[in-house]
Amino acid sequence: MSVTAARGFLASGVAAGIKESGELDLALVVNSGPSYAAAGVFTRNRVQAAPVRWSRRVLRRGRTAAVVLNSGGANACTGRPGDEDTRRGAELTAQALGLRTDDVAVCSTGLIGVRLPMDRLATGIGEATERLRPSGGMDAAAAIRTTDSVRKTAEVSGPDWTVGGMAKGAGMLAPGLATMLVVLTTDADVDADVLDAVLRDAVRTTFDRVDSDGCMSTNDTVLLLASGASGVIPEAAAFAQAVHTVCLDLARQLIADAEGASKEIEVEVVGAASEEDAVTVGRSVARNNLLKCALHGQDANWGRVLSAIGTTDAVFDPDQLDVAINGVWVCRDGAAGESREKVDLSGRQITLTIDLRSGQESAVIWTNDLTAEYVHENSAYSS
Amino acid sequence: MSVTAARGFLASGVAAGIKESGELDLALVVNSGPSYAAAGVFTRNRVQAAPVRWSRRVLRRGRTAAVVLNSGGANACTGRPGDEDTRRGAELTAQALGLRTDDVAVCSTGLIGVRLPMDRLATGIGEATERLRPSGGMDAAAAIRTTDSVRKTAEVSGPDWTVGGMAKGAGMLAPGLATMLVVLTTDADVDADVLDAVLRDAVRTTFDRVDSDGCMSTNDTVLLLASGASGVIPEAAAFAQAVHTVCLDLARQLIADAEGASKEIEVEVVGAASEEDAVTVGRSVARNNLLKCALHGQDANWGRVLSAIGTTDAVFDPDQLDVAINGVWVCRDGAAGESREKVDLSGRQITLTIDLRSGQESAVIWTNDLTAEYVHENSAYSS
Repeated sequence: MSVTAARGFLASGVAAGIKESGELDLALVVNSGPSYAAAGVFTRNRVQAAPVRWSRRVLRRGRTAAVVLNSGGANACTGRPGDEDTRRGAELTAQALGLRTDDVAVCSTGLIGVRLPMDRLATGIGEATERLRPSGGMDAAAAIRTTDSVRKTAEVSGPDWTVGGMAKGAGMLAPGLATMLVVLTTDADVDADVLDAVLRDAVRTTFDRVDSDGCMSTNDTVLLLASGASGVIPEAAAFAQAVHTVCLDLARQLIADAEGASKEIEVEVVGAASEEDAVTVGRSVARNNLLKCALHGQDANWGRVLSAIGTTDAVFDPDQLDVAINGVWVCRDGAAGESREKVDLSGRQITLTIDLRSGQESAVIWTNDLTAEYVHENSAYSS
Repeated sequence: MSVTAARGFLASGVAAGIKESGELDLALVVNSGPSYAAAGVFTRNRVQAAPVRWSRRVLRRGRTAAVVLNSGGANACTGRPGDEDTRRGAELTAQALGLRTDDVAVCSTGLIGVRLPMDRLATGIGEATERLRPSGGMDAAAAIRTTDSVRKTAEVSGPDWTVGGMAKGAGMLAPGLATMLVVLTTDADVDADVLDAVLRDAVRTTFDRVDSDGCMSTNDTVLLLASGASGVIPEAAAFAQAVHTVCLDLARQLIADAEGASKEIEVEVVGAASEEDAVTVGRSVARNNLLKCALHGQDANWGRVLSAIGTTDAVFDPDQLDVAINGVWVCRDGAAGESREKVDLSGRQITLTIDLRSGQESAVIWTNDLTAEYVHENSAYSS
């Protein structure tokens, strides 16, 4: 399971004492080869954490032999000392594993603006190295959790190769990636350029279309490492499909575990003049606090859907908009359609379908409702 | 007070039965001249309510003799029948007052997607006409309330003329106007072109910089009517200042009464390369749900401020950002500054100061915190 589902990877998760609670907070993922090809996608937030700046540079070379990840501290907005801490973390990991420092990617998540306790991190890296094993993926998945209530892992196996992965993320989920750390591994033999193209394409229609609360993180990172341990060069389409499936599975797990959420909402936009229009409309609807509150209260409030659509510059005629909620077309031609009383919103899954009636393109954005629990969790938890 | 502070105006507010609660729900504002110059600013939402479409057309002629406003129903997303209802409301008002139909502006607020009860509206217009009086402004201000907990009125008197007004709005507050209806009146003698320029300029830096929940309404309308009853042509700068002051006063009242809010937050962006950059950054920060939750919890979470700034395309260097919360510079050079423990967030007023250190421009955006009460109010109230 997780990052060790594919052959050629070792992992571990330990409690280094970065989290005051004493929970697991340091994960190590090591590629034992024979290939070390890798690709990465990072936050588009212009305020970027030190580990993002570091890993972006590491991945530019298209290879990564190990990833060290910590929860309990984001190492974001920590200035030059923060950059130095990240470099030191990579260095300690490289020394422990006998690697080059610039073959080690670093990911951090947790509080912003606070330095990491480097002594504890150093001890933890030593311990995590001791505990590396081919079945360590679930421990690693546990160690990257912050407010996540569960571990998030996924895998897809091809005929003779596997793609697996782990993710963390429960709040600050938004486009341009959520506050998410994701590490995907495969034993397929794929070169870095192909990994990069496949990963970007998969992220674009999965993690980038998750929009829990419209807040974009400083630390988002998605890495894909290939060990080549299967000795098999996969068929291109099948491999891309497998990576996409794992990404989608993990993305859905992020939304399912979003902070305080009681509803998982799929916003499906069809009939758009362009895919970009469909995404823009879906995102605007997914970010509408009033609508998210209404759906929380099981109110099929299509007026708030139209109001959100109307703020975009997508191609549509306001008098030609159709909206269905859980399959009931409550809005036809921009006005009331079937009775909203017919809509059953008692379940956890909600689907909004918006027909812009302006073309053939479509997109799906995944979001959740806005609840008092979200407010509570984010008033109390400092991140 | 209110819309009858200036000479040459009559107003009234009655309970027409549009609201099931039996509260006041129909307001009438009548300009008795001698001038009928008027200007209007409307929502930029592309899904526009029938009364917005109607009033926009009325105001294009630069004159308005009466405004009929109702709460209890927005008449938005009601198709052609909704347009017909609005026209009929203007017609009934014109007949009752002996005016031309196209001299009557119409404003509606309340539920989206529901037709207005035209029989009750007709009876209400008759009754409101009977009750018109030179001191009716406070009744009118009461009749336009929806979830507003208080009436919102303001006035400024020049040496020999007055600008007064009323507003409603408590949720769905966002740029491009909030869900707000605002009627301003003056007895100064000002022609329509000047009114239009003065009103647009005032709205741009007041109502347009209120951002309670990022949600833009289908019904927003701000009207300015001049009766000329003072017989005085005001000094241009003094008049513009008076209109700005009344708009700012009303805008602050909207934020102070925002649904569920426990904090009023002023986001002041300085050192921007352009005013547009300052507004963009201010809005991004004002819309950040995570930050709004943190401030609700009295957590001086400057990391969330930086995270929000980083999502914009404004000119800044992430390592040269300074942030003060209630005067304490908790972030210097993009990293931790003074201790966040020094920040007192126990009061209702919070000021965030963001120095982009990239120029001389600035802007202020007004917002509020995100609370469980906001969620509750918007889960239960269908609008």
